[in-house]
Amino acid sequence: MTDLTKLRSLVTVPDPGAEVEVRRRLDQLTKPPGSLGRLEELVVRLATIAGTCPPPLRDPVIFTLAGDHGVVAQGVSAYPQIVTAQMVENFLRGGAAVNVLARHASARVVVADLGVAAPLPRHPALRDLKVASGTADITRGPAMTRAQAVQAIEAGIGLVETERAAGADLVGTGEMGIGNTTAASALVAALTGATVESVTGPGTGVDAAGRRRKVEAIRRALERNAPDPADPLDTLAKVGGFEIAGLVGVILAGAAYRLPVVLDGFIAGAAALVAVRLEPAARGALLAAHRSAEPGHVRVLDALGLEPYLDLGMRLGEGTGAALCISLARAAVSVLTDMATFKSAGVSARADGPGAP
Amino acid sequence: MTDLTKLRSLVTVPDPGAEVEVRRRLDQLTKPPGSLGRLEELVVRLATIAGTCPPPLRDPVIFTLAGDHGVVAQGVSAYPQIVTAQMVENFLRGGAAVNVLARHASARVVVADLGVAAPLPRHPALRDLKVASGTADITRGPAMTRAQAVQAIEAGIGLVETERAAGADLVGTGEMGIGNTTAASALVAALTGATVESVTGPGTGVDAAGRRRKVEAIRRALERNAPDPADPLDTLAKVGGFEIAGLVGVILAGAAYRLPVVLDGFIAGAAALVAVRLEPAARGALLAAHRSAEPGHVRVLDALGLEPYLDLGMRLGEGTGAALCISLARAAVSVLTDMATFKSAGVSARADGPGAP
Repeated sequence: MTDLTKLRSLVTVPDPGAEVEVRRRLDQLTKPPGSLGRLEELVVRLATIAGTCPPPLRDPVIFTLAGDHGVVAQGVSAYPQIVTAQMVENFLRGGAAVNVLARHASARVVVADLGVAAPLPRHPALRDLKVASGTADITRGPAMTRAQAVQAIEAGIGLVETERAAGADLVGTGEMGIGNTTAASALVAALTGATVESVTGPGTGVDAAGRRRKVEAIRRALERNAPDPADPLDTLAKVGGFEIAGLVGVILAGAAYRLPVVLDGFIAGAAALVAVRLEPAARGALLAAHRSAEPGHVRVLDALGLEPYLDLGMRLGEGTGAALCISLARAAVSVLTDMATFKSAGVSARADGPGAP
Repeated sequence: MTDLTKLRSLVTVPDPGAEVEVRRRLDQLTKPPGSLGRLEELVVRLATIAGTCPPPLRDPVIFTLAGDHGVVAQGVSAYPQIVTAQMVENFLRGGAAVNVLARHASARVVVADLGVAAPLPRHPALRDLKVASGTADITRGPAMTRAQAVQAIEAGIGLVETERAAGADLVGTGEMGIGNTTAASALVAALTGATVESVTGPGTGVDAAGRRRKVEAIRRALERNAPDPADPLDTLAKVGGFEIAGLVGVILAGAAYRLPVVLDGFIAGAAALVAVRLEPAARGALLAAHRSAEPGHVRVLDALGLEPYLDLGMRLGEGTGAALCISLARAAVSVLTDMATFKSAGVSARADGPGAP
């Protein structure tokens, strides 16, 4: 496994050469230039990030990382903490939304325990990378130590390196952690300067009183820990989560190895903010799958400068939005590789003048 | 083939019984209620239209109807008229965008000639339903006779009846016809009262001068023909097109046989407007696949009261947007049929209170 410092040095900017080639090819296909809109832009991004035309998309992998959050003691979630472990078992049996949508997209799901509070039964498909049994309650102190944050990031890097060696050519992000919208909102508020109120939503579905508890808990956490926004590792360690830190590593590794990184929703966006603050060039590898219903996501997308491909009012996480976007990416790549050209199909080009026959 | 009058009497409103069942089932799945947003709404619509839960989605069919337009003599398109016939051959060889995206969605494409100007070679997969070799130039008189409009609509009805007998359980709309955004804009202006300027766009990509010719041609067509907006058949015959009339039949037949109708973009929307004016209850069977980049589409969606599922800046037609939405519909149905329930997965339900463990 490559350590964080070394990995950061590997992140480079995308390849404009592949972009020229993919655009030329798109304009030879039997359709008016640009008429497939963002589907064309999507395949251009994939090719540019990978540096090859057509971009490879044989083995997309969604990394669904799980971790628990001490802050749930403050009543910030509609579900009990045990649900994190129960959902990990659901992922391993293939019954969760991300499994179903990943199968629809012909994507693999890699499930990892970065910090689930409850003990999990051994399972051949579960990557045991537990840093600790849940973070500490951020209203009372830091979520984790700086060393633990680095450990979780490097665990994420290792996950991508292992799957890349097995053939992975696209990285999707996913997560599970009761309470993790609270941690994500705290990170986004700390890193962007947005008000807590503006980036805190209902998460899995707390009522108005629950949301007020959430806002209050985040305010106390930021006051108590005083994370330094100029030091993204400090901020991550103080108010983040183990699965979020793991995703920071997944994202940075995707960027370092030129694998397109399809971000899921709000939690993934918070992890991407940390990743980009650690290594700004990583931004070039990111795609936003969808616009989450979670209100803080808009702020994250603005900060990352990303326009999402889908806007379906989803707010489930797990990698569900990433899975739908991977399906769209497959459609986009198939346009590039499978459509006839004007020449091969014997279709006339533009007349570009009045009175065409 | 059922005639138009008989078919209109078959159109009924969707079944609220199936809606109750699908919503109950969605809320038993291992996810916060409603957290898959419009993906859940989509499967509810499919079930309600079909009247069964889960909704069938084994054999979705995209009907790509082709026809030519005499108005191209006015220089309203960036491509010569022969491209309509050339693209029909491209569809039959499987090399067009709609073929590629339909394969991605595991949907069939049925290609029909409703009124292509050029003679087409015989092909076993081509449905020859040619009403005439292109419409007349609408700036000089009506596009077609009222009898021809009914003939084209009934040809569309027949297409759906044939495919339904072969197993089709969802109808997607598609079209090809150089000049048909001009006809669609004329229809939308006539039926909604919108200004010609506001519903006329670049189509396949005319420049500013081409768009001015288009606006001018539509104004002359409406003045010359004075279509009666209270008589949708009159409007369709005077400024429509053969493939658009065929789609009116496809849409009405979908609604009559309780097959969800996934509308593609602007041209399909214009056909749907005519269909709904002929039989308002048909609206209950319609889904808008995407928001087209063609500016008049917003007006059409407003008039139909539909919110599109995708917004990717596409403006190609053929059924390409419908194909992407059918893929999304497959994802939505698989959520309903393949996800574990809280009970089957042993996942705890909501805590709904502060201090959950």
